[in-house]
Amino acid sequence: MPHSKPKARLFVDAALGPGAGVGLDASQAHYVERVMRLAPGDAVLVFNGRDGEWRARLEDGGGKRRALAVDSQTRRQAAEPGPWLAFAPLKKTPMDFVAVKATELGASRLLPVFTRLTAARRVATARLRANTREAAEQCGRLSLPEVAEPVDLRALVAQWPAGRRLLVAEESGGGVPLARALAKAAPGDHAFLIGPEGGWAPDELDALRKLPFVTAVGLGPRILRADTAALAALACWQALVGDWHDGPPASER
Amino acid sequence: MPHSKPKARLFVDAALGPGAGVGLDASQAHYVERVMRLAPGDAVLVFNGRDGEWRARLEDGGGKRRALAVDSQTRRQAAEPGPWLAFAPLKKTPMDFVAVKATELGASRLLPVFTRLTAARRVATARLRANTREAAEQCGRLSLPEVAEPVDLRALVAQWPAGRRLLVAEESGGGVPLARALAKAAPGDHAFLIGPEGGWAPDELDALRKLPFVTAVGLGPRILRADTAALAALACWQALVGDWHDGPPASER
Repeated sequence: MPHSKPKARLFVDAALGPGAGVGLDASQAHYVERVMRLAPGDAVLVFNGRDGEWRARLEDGGGKRRALAVDSQTRRQAAEPGPWLAFAPLKKTPMDFVAVKATELGASRLLPVFTRLTAARRVATARLRANTREAAEQCGRLSLPEVAEPVDLRALVAQWPAGRRLLVAEESGGGVPLARALAKAAPGDHAFLIGPEGGWAPDELDALRKLPFVTAVGLGPRILRADTAALAALACWQALVGDWHDGPPASER
Repeated sequence: MPHSKPKARLFVDAALGPGAGVGLDASQAHYVERVMRLAPGDAVLVFNGRDGEWRARLEDGGGKRRALAVDSQTRRQAAEPGPWLAFAPLKKTPMDFVAVKATELGASRLLPVFTRLTAARRVATARLRANTREAAEQCGRLSLPEVAEPVDLRALVAQWPAGRRLLVAEESGGGVPLARALAKAAPGDHAFLIGPEGGWAPDELDALRKLPFVTAVGLGPRILRADTAALAALACWQALVGDWHDGPPASER
């Protein structure tokens, strides 16, 4: 079955094109051989965020170094212009969760932000990147979200790019209902900012609300955990503004 | 500070009214004394799903049995008519996650459903209930979602209540985009059905689509894990149809 559906999909760094060879690192080799139990000749999909998605075959290599031989392109590279997600760092499990789910929900950039009441003081960005990579492989994205190095809230807003709106999740009930804020939104160039479990310090929120690029948005009457709020905001964005709004083109199916 | 903000909020079984006494079980006593470090006289909020939310004080009881003395009502009981969430059982961690997040997102009933490609064969409903209880305490709900005993898909649809629409998440791209399906929806009387990680068997999905109360809905071009799909659907429902759509009444703030 030369064209059976590939069982594995891998993000790689190498350039992709007809006849290209792609070396696998130790964890990828383990995954294809031990977890997915693929044999030489079996098909794998690969993408690198630049050259689209390609069909490749596991090579019958001697020695320890496993490699793929690239065959043909299955999808052309396309822009994935989802919103940015800025968020106060969380404990390990909910932060893993945010990285995975934000990738599935099409965020284009993850920005950890220290706020006054943020409990965490460090961010394992390498771990966040590993989470986004695995999620992108599984959900079919053509690129990984960029994981930014953490910054303080003050630095985030001081360097804010012109033309990108920042929707700040406000837990105290004063914000514009999310669907109403999104109904006016144009595609692209949005970001969400989700505060820490401890909430916003009052003067932080006052300062944010005065910024011309900020809209404070409300996520209903229940108190959502930070990870729930992040997910809910991204899902609503995709449903109302992003690529869920109309079905994908038939040619993609 | 007789009216400091209570640090703990507990779901209890007892009837609530002025002067009522409420015994705490061992885990609640541990939580208020050891985790929250409350002392006799400290305030606690309590709710039971029937009598609204009340302010109570931790009593200075001798012996091992801890109790609360109920003071005054803080919120009247109100209906919480969120959608039902029917879902194929998942592994422990994502299922915990679905129970917690669905509670925060206002689901009124959780229904585990066995489908053809569901890997799990048992559901720890007691664990699901414990998760919904803790989440309801933390997010400020006045009731717990009901956790139904698991049923087969065939039984679910055979017993389906008249007048409730069932929105089935379809991963293959043929469904109505979620926002479009919800734009036509009236409040109340909806349910979502989320299939297993293995997806729908083709004949299952065909049979579902033929049912007069079913709408197959699409959640965009990326392949969402089942837990992500459940959350995303509930968040969009609340934003577009439910209680996020307009801000809560000012009197509630």
